[in-house]
Amino acid sequence: MPATVVERLGELSQLGRYEGGIDRGFATPQERAARERFAAWARAAGYALSQDRVGNLFARRVGSRAGAAPILVGSHLDTVKTGGAYDGAYGVAGALCALELLDHRAVATTHPLEAVAWVGEEGSRFPLGCLGSAVFAGLTHAEDALALADDTGTTLREALARADGGLLPGLPQRGSAGVAGYLELHVEQGPILERTGARLGIVTAIAGQRRFRVTIEGSSGHAGTVPMAARSDPLSAAAEVILGLEAASRRAEPSVVTVGRLTVEPGSANVIPRRVIFSVDMRAPDDANVDAIERALHDCAARAQEARGVRAVIDALERRAATPMDPRMREAVRRAAGSTGERCIDVPSGAGHDTMCIAAIAPVAMIFVPSIGGVSHVGEERTSDADLELGVETLAAALVEVDRMLAGEG
Amino acid sequence: MPATVVERLGELSQLGRYEGGIDRGFATPQERAARERFAAWARAAGYALSQDRVGNLFARRVGSRAGAAPILVGSHLDTVKTGGAYDGAYGVAGALCALELLDHRAVATTHPLEAVAWVGEEGSRFPLGCLGSAVFAGLTHAEDALALADDTGTTLREALARADGGLLPGLPQRGSAGVAGYLELHVEQGPILERTGARLGIVTAIAGQRRFRVTIEGSSGHAGTVPMAARSDPLSAAAEVILGLEAASRRAEPSVVTVGRLTVEPGSANVIPRRVIFSVDMRAPDDANVDAIERALHDCAARAQEARGVRAVIDALERRAATPMDPRMREAVRRAAGSTGERCIDVPSGAGHDTMCIAAIAPVAMIFVPSIGGVSHVGEERTSDADLELGVETLAAALVEVDRMLAGEG
Repeated sequence: MPATVVERLGELSQLGRYEGGIDRGFATPQERAARERFAAWARAAGYALSQDRVGNLFARRVGSRAGAAPILVGSHLDTVKTGGAYDGAYGVAGALCALELLDHRAVATTHPLEAVAWVGEEGSRFPLGCLGSAVFAGLTHAEDALALADDTGTTLREALARADGGLLPGLPQRGSAGVAGYLELHVEQGPILERTGARLGIVTAIAGQRRFRVTIEGSSGHAGTVPMAARSDPLSAAAEVILGLEAASRRAEPSVVTVGRLTVEPGSANVIPRRVIFSVDMRAPDDANVDAIERALHDCAARAQEARGVRAVIDALERRAATPMDPRMREAVRRAAGSTGERCIDVPSGAGHDTMCIAAIAPVAMIFVPSIGGVSHVGEERTSDADLELGVETLAAALVEVDRMLAGEG
Repeated sequence: MPATVVERLGELSQLGRYEGGIDRGFATPQERAARERFAAWARAAGYALSQDRVGNLFARRVGSRAGAAPILVGSHLDTVKTGGAYDGAYGVAGALCALELLDHRAVATTHPLEAVAWVGEEGSRFPLGCLGSAVFAGLTHAEDALALADDTGTTLREALARADGGLLPGLPQRGSAGVAGYLELHVEQGPILERTGARLGIVTAIAGQRRFRVTIEGSSGHAGTVPMAARSDPLSAAAEVILGLEAASRRAEPSVVTVGRLTVEPGSANVIPRRVIFSVDMRAPDDANVDAIERALHDCAARAQEARGVRAVIDALERRAATPMDPRMREAVRRAAGSTGERCIDVPSGAGHDTMCIAAIAPVAMIFVPSIGGVSHVGEERTSDADLELGVETLAAALVEVDRMLAGEG
């Protein structure tokens, strides 16, 4: 019997482990070791390995129809600097386990099934998120990705040429042609499943995200001598904007808005602030809801300008449209989940995933399992063993359902 | 003719000047040079100089009644690290000029008049505000003050023993006994006079001040995956407290409340804050109004705890009661101001002054002249020459009125 997903996650969690969690940046020795582990498991299972120019790894289980495009299934092996054992790694190990489960049950599929380990999803070493899947989907040129440098000035091209973090040797080159569909299994990274008591989530959409930097300038002054009516306090203005954003998000359900960074200048207890700078991160599975929150940001800032005599500048830093999952893929996953007897619910994904990129070239869907306490991107992120196994079981069934659905089309 | 107050302020402003303003910390060579200048001016005018253990300087103009206690008039010569030319220095130079004006007009007073230069009002070198006046008034023991150390570990005792920043040599020692009354002339450091078009202010009270550190702890999490309804965001809670404090201050006129420092942890744009720490500085000339704002702080924090599931801790750092000015002293000043033909208004002092300490041992009053733009504690603080001269004229008249009033009592 091949190893279970719990056993494999246990092995992977030793790579890059330190007191702050797991640090497995793309093209580091620790991350390469994870790719080697994936390759060893795939070889042992008899799957054909291939690799592309940036290091994405593919393990192909044959299909029954000659020339059929493969269904891809996977996630990523890299982590944030203070990562945990489940984000990404679960979807990669789970993909291999799902393929092996079909072997074990002697289930053939029409399409080849390819377990894939995307590289550089977190953007924690090279400054581009979803690097591997973006290159694969043609959203980023491989040359542009290879030219990216980490904080020390090492380019990805250099890092991938090194023996201690680079490409795996001796593997055939894979192109990007022909993807019939894509599934990704992932931990939720949020509390919705746990709070609703559902053990399976079918992702409705990956949220659109917009990030802003807001700068509010007012008039500084002595905390004791400037009457309230004579003040233009940028921190009070910021407080109004923060609460206005929160209210707007509650009117635009489901959506979230976060002010995670805020600085006050000059920052003395006895001086009225002169300038406040803060971040705004807004996300919703429906772009119309993000639009509504962005309008609220501009409205609140304009009101603060008028009422308080401050000056507000809003810089847009990033805009990413929402990625709805393919409706027929979702239905196929729903049938698979139904076959497990477990209740499953629709959930949005507030976090980004490789699925966003692959959605540009193929129909996609995602399956979530619960995150204990809703936490992720920390060493303590956890999902119960039973939920991990349930997710793999569901993924295997979903591959069969998707294969059947796509074969009916072909 | 002795120098005018404008000329004397011009001289003093050269001492400690740098590109950031004026830096004249207590017992530095620059600050000692200012005390030497005061002593030289006083000697030239024929006033008897004395000094106490911490360096306060007194220049006495004789009175007509033998044994009468002196009326003190003065301010301080030290500055904050980025100070200007007027805060403190104006009240010291102005006091000498007012005495000389009485000489010039051959006006005798019943009480001796003593121009005084208090040391260490700003607390910018040794960590105690109003050091000199607090020691003089017996609120702080001289030994405790002398044991204070600056950031480099130098004690005040050591600093005062040095030739390049210490006590002036050869002066008789002055004790603290017998003060009939105290007047202080100062720049407003706020915008009220300028905005109302009045050139003279009679201080009603020096505001009571309370300072707090508020710590709000919530639940951190991924900015994309935690639904709004599941959040305990300490920054939203802080925003509510900030706006609640502002509203409370507006209900408790006149008062001011300032949040000048605020930090967000962990401070990442894509992470819901875990902890927010902020300062609260509340002041009002009437302690009942400060009470009302402090109640609002506790109420707002309690509401945030209940509504948002955060935990709020309020640490009281400092409590200073309001110091009302003496009503009869205020009336004497009002008569003097009236004699100038200029409109004068009642104003609170949001900033602290040496007058707070002397109020413990004598009836006190303060006169304000306008600060251009309401700014102070910066190199650009400014008061027009005409207003500076008007203040001195008013102070001279007020000394006569106070002398008459106190003599009537005696």
